[in-house]
Order: sequence, then C-alpha cells, then structure tokens
Amino acid sequence: MRSASRLSVGLDIGATKIHGVVVDDAGNIQAEARAATQSGAEGVLASAVGVVDELRDAVDLHITGTVGVGIPGLVDTERGTVSFAVNLDIAGPVLLADRLSERLGLPVAIENDLNAATLGAWHASGTDDLAYLSFGTGLAAGLVLDGKLRRGVHAAAGEIGHIPVDPAGERCHCGQRGCLETIASGSALTRMWPSSDAYPVASLFAAADAGDEKATLVRDRFVGGAADAVRLVALAVDPATILLGGGVTHLGEPFVAAVREALRASAASSDFLASLRLPERLRLVPTDLPVAALGAAMVGRRAQP
Amino acid sequence: MRSASRLSVGLDIGATKIHGVVVDDAGNIQAEARAATQSGAEGVLASAVGVVDELRDAVDLHITGTVGVGIPGLVDTERGTVSFAVNLDIAGPVLLADRLSERLGLPVAIENDLNAATLGAWHASGTDDLAYLSFGTGLAAGLVLDGKLRRGVHAAAGEIGHIPVDPAGERCHCGQRGCLETIASGSALTRMWPSSDAYPVASLFAAADAGDEKATLVRDRFVGGAADAVRLVALAVDPATILLGGGVTHLGEPFVAAVREALRASAASSDFLASLRLPERLRLVPTDLPVAALGAAMVGRRAQP
Repeated sequence: MRSASRLSVGLDIGATKIHGVVVDDAGNIQAEARAATQSGAEGVLASAVGVVDELRDAVDLHITGTVGVGIPGLVDTERGTVSFAVNLDIAGPVLLADRLSERLGLPVAIENDLNAATLGAWHASGTDDLAYLSFGTGLAAGLVLDGKLRRGVHAAAGEIGHIPVDPAGERCHCGQRGCLETIASGSALTRMWPSSDAYPVASLFAAADAGDEKATLVRDRFVGGAADAVRLVALAVDPATILLGGGVTHLGEPFVAAVREALRASAASSDFLASLRLPERLRLVPTDLPVAALGAAMVGRRAQP
Repeated sequence: MRSASRLSVGLDIGATKIHGVVVDDAGNIQAEARAATQSGAEGVLASAVGVVDELRDAVDLHITGTVGVGIPGLVDTERGTVSFAVNLDIAGPVLLADRLSERLGLPVAIENDLNAATLGAWHASGTDDLAYLSFGTGLAAGLVLDGKLRRGVHAAAGEIGHIPVDPAGERCHCGQRGCLETIASGSALTRMWPSSDAYPVASLFAAADAGDEKATLVRDRFVGGAADAVRLVALAVDPATILLGGGVTHLGEPFVAAVREALRASAASSDFLASLRLPERLRLVPTDLPVAALGAAMVGRRAQP
C-alpha cells in the first residue's frame, strides 16, 4: 500500500551536471542536489549514485518510491537502455536502469531527456495537449497529444530541428543543409553571435535593443527561426498549447514576446496563419520549476505498476 | 440490435463529383454511384440526395444504417457544420449533417474530406499508426497516431503543405512563400509542367524517362518535394507507416519508387536520416479501393452511439 509519505527521485542527467530532486506523492519538491557528470557509462552511474546519496542525506524519511532518469541519447524505455549519448561518451547500449537499480536498491525507469522534460512541463502547465519546444544546444519538440506522450516508432517524434527549411542554409551536423536547428538553437546562436557571456542570448537582445545593426539582424533571424518552429509544430500536430523552454529561454518573457511579434508579422500577410491564433498558444515553461528533474521523477512514478 | 445485413452509406463530396458507396457491416462495398457536384449549400445537398437515391435503387435491402460524409473545408464534427469550402462555393457555416439527415431520414455524420480518406486508408492498410500523405490539388497529411485520428485543436493537424521549406520559393496562395505545397502537389505540377493531359504526372514521368531535360528537372523537383514531405511527417510524428495517396499517385508504384530513391539519396549523406528507415515505411494507398468514400462510410459508423 502506498503511504502518503512515499518519496521518489528524479534525475536529470546532462552533459555537464546531474540535477536530482526528491518529490513526495503530491509532486512537491522535498530536496534538491546537483553534481558534475562524469563521462562514460561507469562515470554516469557513479555520479548518479552520488546525487541520490546526497538526496537521501537531505531528507528525514527513507526514499522508498522510484527513481526516474532523464538522459540524452536514444533510450529504450522497455529495456532500460541508453545508446548514442554522444556528449556523455556513451555509445551503448548501456543497461542503465538495471545497473542503477542494483546500486540503489530502488526501482529505476529511464527516458530520453527531452521526453522527461516534456512530462515535467506537462505537469507544470496543467494542459493535456501541448508541444514543448526545447531551445537548448539543439532544437527539438516534446509532444503530449490528447494526454499521451508521443515518442514515435523510431523515437524520432518531435525531431523538428532536423527539418530543412532553407536549401541555401548552413550545413547541419546531421548531414543535411538548412535544418531549423541551424537557425533556432543555442549552437546556432553561438555561431551567429560569438560571445564569452554566460548567456549570449541576453547580450544579443541587449545589443539589438541598443541599436547594434549586426545584433538586430542576428536576433531577427534567430527569433524568426523560433517562430518557424512554432508554425511547424502547429501545422504538423496543432497542439492546444506551445511551451517554449530550454537554455535560451532563461531570457524569459522578452523572448516569448519577440517570437509572438514575429508570428504576428507573418500572420499579417496570411489569413490562414492568422486563423491559427499562434501567438495566443505560446507560453514560457515555468522558469521557477526544474521541469527536467521533476519530469524525470514522473518517469519513475509512471513506470510503477 | 444490429443485424448482419445493415447497410450504411459513405459519400465523398469533391469539387467536381460526389462518389457514394453502400457498405455492409463487414465493410464490403455493395453498391457505388457517382454524380456531378452542384455548387453552393443547396446544390451540394441536392447532389448528395441524388446519389443516395441512386444507391438505394441499386441495393435490394433498405439502407438502415448511417450516412457518413467527407467534404472539403473546415468541418465541425460535433455540430455537423461545414464552412470555408471554397471550391463548393460554401462560405458557411452550413448545418449539413442535420439538413441532409432530414432529407434522407437517416442519421448523418460529417468529417473533413482528408480525415475521411485517412480513415479509409487506415482501414485498408491494416496499420494503426500512420500518416496519409494526400498529393491532390494541394498537399496535406492525415494522421492516425496509435489508433487515434489526430485532428488538432484548430483542425490544422497535418497541414504540412503550408510549411515553408524555401525562403526563395514561389508565393503560395496561403500568403506565405516557398510552402511545401508549391513544390509537391498537383497544382505545383500543373505550374511546373503545363499539360493538357488528363494525367500530367504520367506524361511528365514518360518525358523524363525519354530523356527530356526540362521534364527531368521538373520530375526531380516534384519527387524531391514529395520526399521532403515524407521526411517532415517522419520527423514531426514518426509514424510506423507513411501512405502515399491522392490524384498524383494514380501513377502507382513508379511514383513510390521515385520517392524512395530520393529518400535513399538524402540518407546517403546523413546517418541520422538513414537510421529512420524511411523508404521501408512508404506504401501506396490501395488504388483498387475507393478509400475516400469508404472512409466516409466509417465516419458515419463511428458516430453511431
């Protein structure tokens, strides 16, 4: 029988750090911990165990629930394996769920990091039909359609960053040319606006606001690409809500406002686009909640029989 | 109680003709009829009643089931209304379901023509997870995701024909530039390869096969656009099966083979694309079945309590 005090863990494993949370049955965060990610399968395991140990120390009650993990790469949720996690130096497949479960003495379920973050964004947003556009180093969308996470048969649903939108565009690391990710992502921003700032998007917007011509061009191209991504998910699956998230969106509402403005500008010459009411569907993922780690906790809880 | 001999009707209402079928409970076609479509709400109603009368005469048993209708335009399935059916001269909203039901004395349900055809293609294909790419005058996709028709909140799911893929492309009637529909659709073909043939795509492929340079360029661009559409739905929703249908595909397997070849060519420079196994997912909609009218019959049967 589940008691009201059962605690579960969510681990958001990124290329540089692991972010862990302990949540109670109501989904409230009871503790948080962060640690650097060591690379390779053994490194990731050791780092993850370290974070869970720290979380165990931080809470009074025993953690008796599940451990959910969000991790980059190709994840087989049934078998609990991860492969092609390039930035973690994992070629795989690695039996991450079983091996972590053995080390922790708790049931472990794993999920692709974007899908985990999508579950967190879903939980935080209170809407059952959404696309979560994640503007990180890359660009991808997580989809919750009519209350159901859409992974796709090759786990490629929402990989909109690799849809080409300009035959004359930049070469993409995926081998194609002019992918949306070459315009609307953190790596695109770094290419177009080289900067040593911790938050290049903030310095870009500031420079553009101050009248810098080059900054204005780059900002408009970047924001235009983000608007393209919004239109694309709308015309593909037409979700009720489109959530903007990922590192780039720490700029907050000014970023959303800029994307809304770009959508309004394109709708001005298209009654069809105008009828879709895209600006009204846009929302920023709550920035005060760690949606990726929270979503990871949900991955574990959903996997529980 | 439903008897084994209950007959239902499906009406595929197009801009130029209405195609009607009578199906039994097993989904087998018992009769077919066609008539020219008269324009305007009254014209469409009169034409539809005419086709049903003809179908009634053609079968021995009374039609006691439902009448399902597939019709272009924006359809409100709950209220049974159609609007923005430009080619039928209906601005709407017209209470088509109620008015047709009154005239026929049978329950009537309506659905957007692409969604109706998608239901038919789904039924005929035997797969529960698919995108139905309809290359007609325009280009759009019908989506059945994990056994459920995806309409979208603004009925815009699958409107991939209006995703811009070339900033330097042709102006689209939707107001944007370089939409996929300006490359991969019947109207694009007519623009690029003006022809008085009944099936321009057949003469285009024949001319290209015979070595005509202009025909080869147009064919490659058209087929390339179709391959773009396949990649786009794969990267958006990643369906198990991608069905090619619509007027353009009456060319049959040679068309599918050409699209497969274009997909293979692009996968040669992208391991990522190659991993998606797109050529293997492609199938032609069965050309010996009237999927649009059959799907319309399913619209009616699904709406039955």
